[in-house]
Amino acid sequence: MTPPRPMRFMSDNTATVCPEILAGIAEANRGLAVAYGDDPWTQRLDSVLGAFFGTTVRAFPVATGTAANALALATLTPPYGAIFAHHEAHIACDECGAPGFFCGGAQLVLLEGEHGKLSAGTLARAIEEHPVSVHTVQPAAVSVSQASELGGTYRPEEIAALCTVAHTRGLKVHMDGARFANAVAFLGCHPGDVTWRAGIDVLSFGATKNGALAAEAVVFFDPALVRDFELRRKRAGHLLSKSRFVSAQLLAYLEAGLWRRNAEHANRLARRLGEAAGSRLLNPVEANEVFVRLGEAGRQALRAAGFEFYDWGAPTSGLARLVTSWDQSERDVEALCAALGDLPGD
Amino acid sequence: MTPPRPMRFMSDNTATVCPEILAGIAEANRGLAVAYGDDPWTQRLDSVLGAFFGTTVRAFPVATGTAANALALATLTPPYGAIFAHHEAHIACDECGAPGFFCGGAQLVLLEGEHGKLSAGTLARAIEEHPVSVHTVQPAAVSVSQASELGGTYRPEEIAALCTVAHTRGLKVHMDGARFANAVAFLGCHPGDVTWRAGIDVLSFGATKNGALAAEAVVFFDPALVRDFELRRKRAGHLLSKSRFVSAQLLAYLEAGLWRRNAEHANRLARRLGEAAGSRLLNPVEANEVFVRLGEAGRQALRAAGFEFYDWGAPTSGLARLVTSWDQSERDVEALCAALGDLPGD
Amino acid sequence: MTPPRPMRFMSDNTATVCPEILAGIAEANRGLAVAYGDDPWTQRLDSVLGAFFGTTVRAFPVATGTAANALALATLTPPYGAIFAHHEAHIACDECGAPGFFCGGAQLVLLEGEHGKLSAGTLARAIEEHPVSVHTVQPAAVSVSQASELGGTYRPEEIAALCTVAHTRGLKVHMDGARFANAVAFLGCHPGDVTWRAGIDVLSFGATKNGALAAEAVVFFDPALVRDFELRRKRAGHLLSKSRFVSAQLLAYLEAGLWRRNAEHANRLARRLGEAAGSRLLNPVEANEVFVRLGEAGRQALRAAGFEFYDWGAPTSGLARLVTSWDQSERDVEALCAALGDLPGD
Amino acid sequence: MTPPRPMRFMSDNTATVCPEILAGIAEANRGLAVAYGDDPWTQRLDSVLGAFFGTTVRAFPVATGTAANALALATLTPPYGAIFAHHEAHIACDECGAPGFFCGGAQLVLLEGEHGKLSAGTLARAIEEHPVSVHTVQPAAVSVSQASELGGTYRPEEIAALCTVAHTRGLKVHMDGARFANAVAFLGCHPGDVTWRAGIDVLSFGATKNGALAAEAVVFFDPALVRDFELRRKRAGHLLSKSRFVSAQLLAYLEAGLWRRNAEHANRLARRLGEAAGSRLLNPVEANEVFVRLGEAGRQALRAAGFEFYDWGAPTSGLARLVTSWDQSERDVEALCAALGDLPGD
Repeated sequence: MTPPRPMRFMSDNTATVCPEILAGIAEANRGLAVAYGDDPWTQRLDSVLGAFFGTTVRAFPVATGTAANALALATLTPPYGAIFAHHEAHIACDECGAPGFFCGGAQLVLLEGEHGKLSAGTLARAIEEHPVSVHTVQPAAVSVSQASELGGTYRPEEIAALCTVAHTRGLKVHMDGARFANAVAFLGCHPGDVTWRAGIDVLSFGATKNGALAAEAVVFFDPALVRDFELRRKRAGHLLSKSRFVSAQLLAYLEAGLWRRNAEHANRLARRLGEAAGSRLLNPVEANEVFVRLGEAGRQALRAAGFEFYDWGAPTSGLARLVTSWDQSERDVEALCAALGDLPGD
Repeated sequence: MTPPRPMRFMSDNTATVCPEILAGIAEANRGLAVAYGDDPWTQRLDSVLGAFFGTTVRAFPVATGTAANALALATLTPPYGAIFAHHEAHIACDECGAPGFFCGGAQLVLLEGEHGKLSAGTLARAIEEHPVSVHTVQPAAVSVSQASELGGTYRPEEIAALCTVAHTRGLKVHMDGARFANAVAFLGCHPGDVTWRAGIDVLSFGATKNGALAAEAVVFFDPALVRDFELRRKRAGHLLSKSRFVSAQLLAYLEAGLWRRNAEHANRLARRLGEAAGSRLLNPVEANEVFVRLGEAGRQALRAAGFEFYDWGAPTSGLARLVTSWDQSERDVEALCAALGDLPGD
Repeated sequence: MTPPRPMRFMSDNTATVCPEILAGIAEANRGLAVAYGDDPWTQRLDSVLGAFFGTTVRAFPVATGTAANALALATLTPPYGAIFAHHEAHIACDECGAPGFFCGGAQLVLLEGEHGKLSAGTLARAIEEHPVSVHTVQPAAVSVSQASELGGTYRPEEIAALCTVAHTRGLKVHMDGARFANAVAFLGCHPGDVTWRAGIDVLSFGATKNGALAAEAVVFFDPALVRDFELRRKRAGHLLSKSRFVSAQLLAYLEAGLWRRNAEHANRLARRLGEAAGSRLLNPVEANEVFVRLGEAGRQALRAAGFEFYDWGAPTSGLARLVTSWDQSERDVEALCAALGDLPGD
Repeated sequence: MTPPRPMRFMSDNTATVCPEILAGIAEANRGLAVAYGDDPWTQRLDSVLGAFFGTTVRAFPVATGTAANALALATLTPPYGAIFAHHEAHIACDECGAPGFFCGGAQLVLLEGEHGKLSAGTLARAIEEHPVSVHTVQPAAVSVSQASELGGTYRPEEIAALCTVAHTRGLKVHMDGARFANAVAFLGCHPGDVTWRAGIDVLSFGATKNGALAAEAVVFFDPALVRDFELRRKRAGHLLSKSRFVSAQLLAYLEAGLWRRNAEHANRLARRLGEAAGSRLLNPVEANEVFVRLGEAGRQALRAAGFEFYDWGAPTSGLARLVTSWDQSERDVEALCAALGDLPGD
């Protein structure tokens, strides 16, 4: 008897590269091009991302989300600065201390919030309670994740409220958009509505999780920070010599509308899983991540049936995270829905 | 009418230098001495602190507690390391991000605990819940404050339990002993009982708050870390050229028993305040800090009467911190006791 | 009249990606794969690079040479360490301070040497003259470039002599192999002869300049350093989520022998240019870079004829650097040879 | 037979503290004072140093010269910045990489120059030859030592020429004034003539080597940099809680004219040594350091006679550095003069 074929719900990072993006790379592979970003592909990024967001932007390609986040934060935060973020934020939990490294020692101030989201009230209170003196790290930046690490999505007015709290107190706002397309696809809004129109200063615009090979853009809505960024990127080893191939991914992603098509596929399948999970569901499904209460027995049963996924929370929590991706097999999702339905009641 | 003479309960840092310590400095001021710690005073530190602790130690003078803490932690913690500490620890709240700076970006993991103290159970849970992967900062060190920032004092068995939790999981333990003398004077134990015998790896041994001019010793019970420390100290600008004058302070402090005499004075007056505070007292008084619930009106009344102190907690908390020092005037303390008694009931 | 078609001799970074490497990426684009390096492609790197070098290695893919160099050096060098390198080394001149950033402040000690190469004698003298005390950065590592920044190539015995000097004084040796294939192709030796057999501890093994899209491997011949490396890579944002696509490039590069074929093409054309340059040639041509004395008039004449290249040295030096790449057009090279011959005598 | 009494010419750091400065400390030891620099002594520093320099300044006390230099440079230099300095500068050779640490990785560009001094021409050439691109560290600051590490002294017009070169290219200028008093006493000029009037932006004003216990002031002639400095100082552990005792040293040093009296004593004895050295003298004696050619035999002879001093340069150079201090014994100097005269001709 053969073992069951693995059905993977671990991460959208396990997905393949979207064929149109591979084609974009191949098309960029013609002729010699000036290195380090002075190539025609990279030089189009500002206008293509500007059109996408409906405003003037400066955009820079990098190969990883951690690089995008940490570099963006380092342009906003002095080494004695404080960055306010959700206690489950990727920058706090999954980047091995990258913000501290890139910012030269800056400290994270971690806050609570439902569905992985910060609220304006919590943020305002945290900044106000932060002592004002030379003895403490200085409030400098806020980082929010869109979509959040718990699959939640900020509404435009929620972002605006957060940015107002931050800006009136002298802080800048960074958005970790590793799953930005999933959030915008869910919200059905314009990309500008949850970014610059709401006050975001700099965005990590992710494409890798949604079908690219390795492509993120750091998008500045405030051009004053750009020169500092470029030097930080270079000395961090994140300026690629053959930058055209990262930029070509981003161009294909945006110009062919892949960002929306891919995100909608992943979101739809996630919603399907959320419905099948019924009362096991922990959070509303607003992107492509689904958090479910399975219990230890439930986790074992699903794994025995060939489903792969990460546990969530403390080892004994019985929780699981299910992630769908742009190339997720519909059949696998239906199989998981069925398996969820077959679990004994919780 | 003259304004009331200020009666200062803000910090033991506002105190004068103990005359015997000034005398120690003056005595060291004879003849030329090799610079940068190769002088006879500094060379006696190991043996004098070794006798104090009842074991072999390596000890290094520095001029500030922040330097002692951050340098000690940097010898224990790689740049991608995590340091577990109480959320009100001095290293977290009052050192402007020094641990992140000295460790090259290490991250603090902040925990709850009564009276400013970590419990072994809380620590064990936190380490166990910390994800084990390359994506997260790596548990490296624990830092405890003796006495704690809330005036609490760890018992020897509490330290031992914490160190066992840490060591069995591969972490080292640092003690911030800015008020170490106050803690030992309160406990009536041997200095070794709450340090190396309980498992502490490195101690910031403070003297400044308890009568020195500017003198702390970083005391290593594990000599393996010493060379790294010496180089970190130098490049941080904390190796004093005329080191003899810091060492002479520490020698006077220890050899003449000033550490105990000064701490007992401050502790006794703090206890007196704690008794007078009655039901306003927030925590047991186990060192020289007293935390009281005054309400906004109470704070104003005391200040109008000439008492100076810091608010504590959120601006609207109505809490206050009262600190006594080695040279605190008994008369001022009695005046404050009376004023506390005169406040309308809370 | 149309302007002349640009003929590019600026950098091997301006080249395209080799078709076999693009094919390798496409082949890896099948099915879901565990992210962050736990995929079958990445897991084969150790054995494929081990076979290439003829010894056991641990190898890690990254996307840029600067990342490879700075991460490798950071595993060898404490923050108070000194790195000895040639004053024209890429790490000194072209990485915007990356070694200082990744090592937490380490200092470069820059040395002279013919053809961009360090000699064992110069290195020995520099280490011996470096003061031994706590006041100075501590000699920790040596970095050599193979091929050198001036197109020179170390012979196996030269590397061995350098490594002996370093190792007997407690330093580790890093090799920047951005053009490693060009050097080995020129020398006609086994890849092990100029690395581990000669004493190299860690190698930045470059493929990007020689036909890859963005792929370098950090190759450890000393496995003790690996865990530290992995955490430093992650927190620097250099652990790619879809690592398979970097690893697939390296596999294609090695398994199909592209490394040698591509390097031999570039080297051959560079030699051709060197011959044509005659007495204008500054250094022996031992890889794919050619340094020539053109004078200001010569530089202008060649540029007017459509040749693109970088000036070298001080603005008024009259020197130029000509680089050939794996996909360099023979016709362009012949045109440049002819143009060099036509320049008035120097 | 008793061994000869050691006669110490190793460093001005081996000297005692000047009695008037100890008296200043004792006078400051009255009553409680607000900690961390909000005390009356520290608050007078700006006006007293302002009067000394004849302009408005902001001044901050720290305990070591390394701290003063590294903190000052960190306010001028981004982490990707370049600092131009003499290759024998204290910041390059004697601070264990402090500038790299405090600046978050900035790189030193080390230049040649007679008598330890930079010339405007050398500096201009170095900046102009420094490549302008994102690939290299960005010229940010120049650091000059007054007096230089080789006992030389910049004339006002030399400083002015350097500052013009720097400022017209966008760089700031720092002066390491560990021996500032010795330089001014030699030059007979106004302290402003070699600082702000000539264009210096920030000065490390040393007192420790010239009679203080541990006291340096970082003096800003450009107030815009001050807030950044204060936070950097705190997180580096260089804000002393009992700051009054550092400030009191500086006040005594300046207000009683000790700076000049002490420097003149040391300078006079150094000149005496320089005359006695005759043709063995390497550099003009313009402060309190004397560099002499002794040969190995000469060094041994002097040491056998009880003179202590450091070798200079490479181990086999035969050179020595002789330093006189504010409390140097005239008799010892005369003895050394005689011994120099008795050495066999070189």
